[in-house]
Amino acid sequence: MSSRITLKDLAKKLNLSPSTISRALADHHSIGEETKKRVREKAEEVGFTPNSIAASFRKKKTKSIGIIVPRIDVHFHSRVISGIEEFAYKTGYNVTIFQSKDSFVREKEITKILQNRMVEGIIVCLSIETQDYEHFKRFKKLGMPLVFYDRVPSSLDANKIIVNDFESAFTATEHLIKNNCKRIAHIAGSQNTDIFKERLKGYTAALKKHHLKIDPDLILPTNNLSYEEGVICANKYLEMESRPDGVFCANDYTAVSVIQVFRKAGINIPKDVAIVGFSNYPISGIIEPNLTTVNDRAFQMGEAAARLLTRQIEDEENYIGSEIITLNTELIVRESSIRKASNK
Amino acid sequence: MSSRITLKDLAKKLNLSPSTISRALADHHSIGEETKKRVREKAEEVGFTPNSIAASFRKKKTKSIGIIVPRIDVHFHSRVISGIEEFAYKTGYNVTIFQSKDSFVREKEITKILQNRMVEGIIVCLSIETQDYEHFKRFKKLGMPLVFYDRVPSSLDANKIIVNDFESAFTATEHLIKNNCKRIAHIAGSQNTDIFKERLKGYTAALKKHHLKIDPDLILPTNNLSYEEGVICANKYLEMESRPDGVFCANDYTAVSVIQVFRKAGINIPKDVAIVGFSNYPISGIIEPNLTTVNDRAFQMGEAAARLLTRQIEDEENYIGSEIITLNTELIVRESSIRKASNK
Repeated sequence: MSSRITLKDLAKKLNLSPSTISRALADHHSIGEETKKRVREKAEEVGFTPNSIAASFRKKKTKSIGIIVPRIDVHFHSRVISGIEEFAYKTGYNVTIFQSKDSFVREKEITKILQNRMVEGIIVCLSIETQDYEHFKRFKKLGMPLVFYDRVPSSLDANKIIVNDFESAFTATEHLIKNNCKRIAHIAGSQNTDIFKERLKGYTAALKKHHLKIDPDLILPTNNLSYEEGVICANKYLEMESRPDGVFCANDYTAVSVIQVFRKAGINIPKDVAIVGFSNYPISGIIEPNLTTVNDRAFQMGEAAARLLTRQIEDEENYIGSEIITLNTELIVRESSIRKASNK
Repeated sequence: MSSRITLKDLAKKLNLSPSTISRALADHHSIGEETKKRVREKAEEVGFTPNSIAASFRKKKTKSIGIIVPRIDVHFHSRVISGIEEFAYKTGYNVTIFQSKDSFVREKEITKILQNRMVEGIIVCLSIETQDYEHFKRFKKLGMPLVFYDRVPSSLDANKIIVNDFESAFTATEHLIKNNCKRIAHIAGSQNTDIFKERLKGYTAALKKHHLKIDPDLILPTNNLSYEEGVICANKYLEMESRPDGVFCANDYTAVSVIQVFRKAGINIPKDVAIVGFSNYPISGIIEPNLTTVNDRAFQMGEAAARLLTRQIEDEENYIGSEIITLNTELIVRESSIRKASNK
């Protein structure tokens, strides 16, 4: 695959240093536009391919992994990062961390910083705004391994670590059905994001399987599944003439708001309405009644991402293409969903 | 201050490369013990001082900051890290993260890794086990800036970012007194840790000021202020003949357990017992009644640590010695502590 022309050859032809060539081809900010243009043209002329650049870059063993997360202080992400650090530490890598703050612009800026090769591979959870993946395609050209987790790019051929959101939502909804719920509502996450689309699909599939009516009024979408949005949804359900007798929430924060709003309105949880959340946040084991929820295995997701990434960094020769790893979740059944009538 | 002998001179004398000398003097694992001994002896003989080593090291501008935290997935630390990353990102630094998992051994191992100069400065929150600071003294010798936050080494002259734990605890306790509490209990953190010692001192100082009896039975120490330990403490208070009418808890988790255990026992919060926590965790605004707590300003602590560290990295010449920065907290008054009798 590699070209006969080496980086050194190209440097000689252009009377520039090899490191200037590398940086010019990697679009590094320290190189002027004119030089970049000259280098790109010459590289094309002599047939110096990105693969060779990649290979020459790859010799720089920094033993560093880069992570781009939306926000470090979101519990899910801090657990994933903890899993990545744990695996990296054991295998001699260190972890450099960036937060996109859920901004597409900042995410793009970070990918530019990471192009200067201070890391050997990158783990990413996409910002909520990201719909375009051009900024990640460059890493592929540079031969730098890249693993996405949780919020992954649907249309990009890439390494991905996900949980089985569809099956998890299906199991959670079916659990409510088995607990004698007939009219099950769903508080949904942003439908721009695959994982929340899958959770909605899993919910509707379970209703269909059990011949329950799918009532669009009971499906309430939110922007970011905040506690406050959960309160608004819960009040909407309260105002309905025919209230739900079960609610499957796409995360724990909204589930907690439903529990609190309903209890204040004199509704008994789980007797009148059974509730299931998603993510197993610490609050799910503290709120009363304790919340039935899906363990999303964030720490394991981080470990799996770091394992896949370091394998691709170290074992270049056996690279077989992008891999998608799906982790299984488990439903943690607690008080909020167990109804005497038909407990399973 | 700097010696006339340069690193190059020393390298020439020993017939070794300058980088070998640097690494030998920094006790790097890649250099054999015998070489290290030879280099150290020669350096002493010719008067090559650590300052010169530091200066030669300092030329390596990696634009990287290292962080050592006990655990990434503890909400307090994830917010501090978020503050550090935010400041670092804006000023062109990147952040490499390690977790000690509250292990003294692992913390020492990490400091060895960081000695190889991949970072220009380090921010640390000590592991709960750490009583000895020798492993951090080496950075001082290497001239590498170091900032501690939250759990800081009491006996080491170093940069420290802390909150005014004494005053915060004093204010929290006085707030309970102003709300007509006469018999105030305290759930305390580990008394091996300065911040928790200060909180206990602030509590007793407030009682003294208001001529309230200090009853040792009401002061319950814990190991790590877990939710479970809080449940145990709450049950001890319940069993007392003369129960407390106010509880100041050294964190929010234990405060939440007290609220839940007491409410289950039919005690009205805040009418019968008023409760105050510490840290303003998300759960404090969700638990019912909402918890009065101290905003510990973790994000700002991270920003302050990064600001001080980068200033010392970049402005070596104006270095005036270690700095201790104390951030002010604020008491967030919510339902759990407001008693009609004497509300302020």
